Amino acid sequence: MAIIVHKYGGTSVGTPEKIKNVARRVKQVREGGDDVVVIVSAMGHTTDELIDLMNKVTDYPDPREYDMLVSTGEQVSAALLAMALQAMGCPAISLTGGQAGVVTEDIYKKARIKHIHLDRVKAEIKQGRAVVITGFQGIDSKGDIITIGRGGSDTSAVAIAAALQAKVCDIYTDVDGVYTTDPRIVSDARKLEHISYEEMLELASLGAQVLHPRSVECASLYDIVIHLRSSTKDIPGTLIMSAKAIAKQGGSKMEKKEAVRGIALDENIAKVGILKVPDKPGIAAKLFGALASESINVDMIVQSIHSKGAMADMAFTVDKPDLKKAVQAVEKVAKELKAEGTLSDADVCKVSLVGIGMVSQPGTAAKMFDSLSREKINIQMISTSEIKVSCVIKKEQGKKAVQILHKAFGLA
Amino acid sequence: MAIIVHKYGGTSVGTPEKIKNVARRVKQVREGGDDVVVIVSAMGHTTDELIDLMNKVTDYPDPREYDMLVSTGEQVSAALLAMALQAMGCPAISLTGGQAGVVTEDIYKKARIKHIHLDRVKAEIKQGRAVVITGFQGIDSKGDIITIGRGGSDTSAVAIAAALQAKVCDIYTDVDGVYTTDPRIVSDARKLEHISYEEMLELASLGAQVLHPRSVECASLYDIVIHLRSSTKDIPGTLIMSAKAIAKQGGSKMEKKEAVRGIALDENIAKVGILKVPDKPGIAAKLFGALASESINVDMIVQSIHSKGAMADMAFTVDKPDLKKAVQAVEKVAKELKAEGTLSDADVCKVSLVGIGMVSQPGTAAKMFDSLSREKINIQMISTSEIKVSCVIKKEQGKKAVQILHKAFGLA
Repeated sequence: MAIIVHKYGGTSVGTPEKIKNVARRVKQVREGGDDVVVIVSAMGHTTDELIDLMNKVTDYPDPREYDMLVSTGEQVSAALLAMALQAMGCPAISLTGGQAGVVTEDIYKKARIKHIHLDRVKAEIKQGRAVVITGFQGIDSKGDIITIGRGGSDTSAVAIAAALQAKVCDIYTDVDGVYTTDPRIVSDARKLEHISYEEMLELASLGAQVLHPRSVECASLYDIVIHLRSSTKDIPGTLIMSAKAIAKQGGSKMEKKEAVRGIALDENIAKVGILKVPDKPGIAAKLFGALASESINVDMIVQSIHSKGAMADMAFTVDKPDLKKAVQAVEKVAKELKAEGTLSDADVCKVSLVGIGMVSQPGTAAKMFDSLSREKINIQMISTSEIKVSCVIKKEQGKKAVQILHKAFGLA
Repeated sequence: MAIIVHKYGGTSVGTPEKIKNVARRVKQVREGGDDVVVIVSAMGHTTDELIDLMNKVTDYPDPREYDMLVSTGEQVSAALLAMALQAMGCPAISLTGGQAGVVTEDIYKKARIKHIHLDRVKAEIKQGRAVVITGFQGIDSKGDIITIGRGGSDTSAVAIAAALQAKVCDIYTDVDGVYTTDPRIVSDARKLEHISYEEMLELASLGAQVLHPRSVECASLYDIVIHLRSSTKDIPGTLIMSAKAIAKQGGSKMEKKEAVRGIALDENIAKVGILKVPDKPGIAAKLFGALASESINVDMIVQSIHSKGAMADMAFTVDKPDLKKAVQAVEKVAKELKAEGTLSDADVCKVSLVGIGMVSQPGTAAKMFDSLSREKINIQMISTSEIKVSCVIKKEQGKKAVQILHKAFGLA
C-alpha cells in the first residue's frame, strides 16, 4: 500500500462534470488499495475572473489581499472534488494549504514552501480518506494565506509528494506529455518518454508551459518522479526523473541520442537595458540588487564594454508583467549611476535549445546561430549554459525560428 | 476615538462599484477619527452560485465540505473591500473569521460562536488599518472552517462589536429599517424609529428577514445597539436596543403606545404531525430528541389529547428545507411509538403579531382570531408568548392576513 499523489490543473477541474471525472480516477486508485492525496488548482478561469474583479476596485492590488482573494479558487475546487468523491462512496476530505500544514515564507504572491507539517494529512489518510489539498498556497508564520505564485500548484504537489515520501507524483494536465517542442508550432513534434530534471527545468523555465519550473526543481531535490500525463486520455505521459535513473532504465538507448532534446519558445519576456554606465565595480550589484528588492526575476544578462572609454551597456530580460516595475527601478539606478540612458522592448521572445547531450557535442550553438541567420533572423541577445542555448529575437519571428530549428536538429 | 462596527450584506457588496461605495463610507468614518471594523457577506448571489455548483457534483453534500466551499464567498468580498479601501488611500486589511480569532463550536453549517480572540484585530487597528472581516464564519478547535448558518454575518458583526466593546453595530442592508410589516405586502407600513430586542427577536425569527435572530439575541446579551439602515440612502434607520433604553430616550412616548408593534409573515415553514400516539411520559422527549439530533429546529409545537382513550396528536413546524429530514425522523419515531400515522404539509405559512405592550393589553389574541375568521381564514395552529401571537394558516392566505391585521391593529 503506497501513497499516490495526483495533481489536477485548472482545465482538468474546469466544470462539475470534469470534477466528477477526476473523482472517478481518484476512486479507482483508492479501490486498487493505495492511499491518494490530490492537489487541485482553481477551476478553469476562476483565477482570471477573480483578478478581473480585483482590477475593477484597484489599480495597485496589495499582494496580501491578492493572495487572500485568489486562494479562494482552489478552495472551491478542493471542496467540490471532496464532495464528488463522497457522492461516489469514496470517503474524502478537503484541506486548505494551511490546514494541510504547508508553511511558506512571509512573502506574498511568490513565496516558497518552507516546510510541511503532515500530521493532519496523515491522520486523515489513516481514517481511510482521500485527501484533497488546495494547490498553490500555504500559510505564513502569522497565519496569513500566501500563494506560491501562479502555476505553483505543481510545486505544491511535488512538495507534498516529497513530504509524504511518495515515489511518483502524477501531474494531470491538458497536454499528454512533454514534446520536443510545442505541437501547435511544429506539427510533427514528438512526445518524449523520459526527460531529465535538468532538461525539463530548462524547458519549463523557458516557456514550455506544461510544468512549473519550481516543481521540477523540487522534484529533483527530493528525487520524486513526475509523471506528466493527460487528464482525459488514459495513456502514458512523460516521466521526469534523474538522468541517472533514465540511463539505468535504458531510456537513453531507447530514444535517439540527440544533443538537443527540446526547443522552447518564451513569448512572455521583455528586454530592458541600461546604456553607457561608467564601468566600475559594484554596478551590477547595485542594478540587480534594486531589481531583486522589487522581487523582479531577471533572466538573461548581457554586459558589453564599449571600446572607447570604460563605459558598459547592460541588457537583461524580465517577465513581461514585470516590465513596468523593472523600467522604473532601472531608471532610478541609471540616474544614480549617471548612465546615458535606458531602453525597454516588449516586442521580443526567446528561443532555446535544451539537451544534456549538448555538453559533449560542441557546435550546437554555432549550428543554431547559422540556421537562424540563413533565415534572416537577427539575434539580439545570446546566453548559453551547459545544457541550453537561448537567443532573444523579434517576437514575430519566434514561431518560425522554432520550426527551422526543430527541422535543423532532426527532432521530428 | 471609538471603534465603529459596520456590517454590509450581500446586496451592498454585490458589484465592484458597490464595493467602492462601501469603501467610501468606511473611509469617511476613518477620516472622522474613529476606528472601523467592517464585517462583510458574500457578493450578491455568490453563495447561491457555489451551491449550484455543489448540487452538480453531489446530492448529499457533507456539511464540512459545504462550509469549506461557501466560506470562500465572504473571503472574496473581504479582500476586494480591503483593496478598494487601499486604492482610496485608506490603510486596510482583510481577515478570515479564523484569522480574526472567531472560534466556533465544532458543528458544521450551524455553529455558534464560542469566543473571539481579538489580538490580531486589535493589532491591525493599532496599525491604523480599517479591518475587514469575513462574516458568517469562524474556525473550530481543529482549525476547520465553520459557517454559522446563512444570514449569520449579522451575528458575526454583533459578536465582534461586543468583543470590541463597541457601543453600536451599524448593519447596512437593502432595506432602510424595520417596518410595522413588509412594505411589499402592506403599502402604508410604517418605519419604526426604535424597537426592543425582544420585539425584534420575534419579528426576525418570524420571518421579517431583515436581520438574523441570533444577531439580535447576541446584541441583547451584550447590550449592543444595532442600527439597521440603508446601504444606499444616508438616512437614519431603526435602532434595535433594550426596552429600558428606549423608555429612557422617551422613545415609547415619541411613538404611539400600541400593543402590537409589528406583523410578520413567514412563508418558509412546513407543518409536520404525528397522529394518535399512546399518551405516556417521554413521548415528546423521544420525538423532539430525534429531531434535535438531526439539527432540525422545531418552532411551534401543539399537542392535543383525543377525548376517547389516552392518545395524543402532536404537530409542529420546521423550516421548509428541513421538511424531508424531519418527516424521515418522525416516521421512524412513529413506528417505534406505534403511532397511527404522520402528516406533513408544506403549503402553510405563519402570521404573527409582535409587541411588548401585548402583555399588558389582554384581548390582542382574541382580536386577531376574530379578524381572521371574519375573512374566512382558517387557523390551523396557534402559539402565544408574552409578546407575540402566531397563527399557522394556508400559505395562499398569508399576505391577505397580514393586510387585514395591519389595518385592524391600526399600524399604518
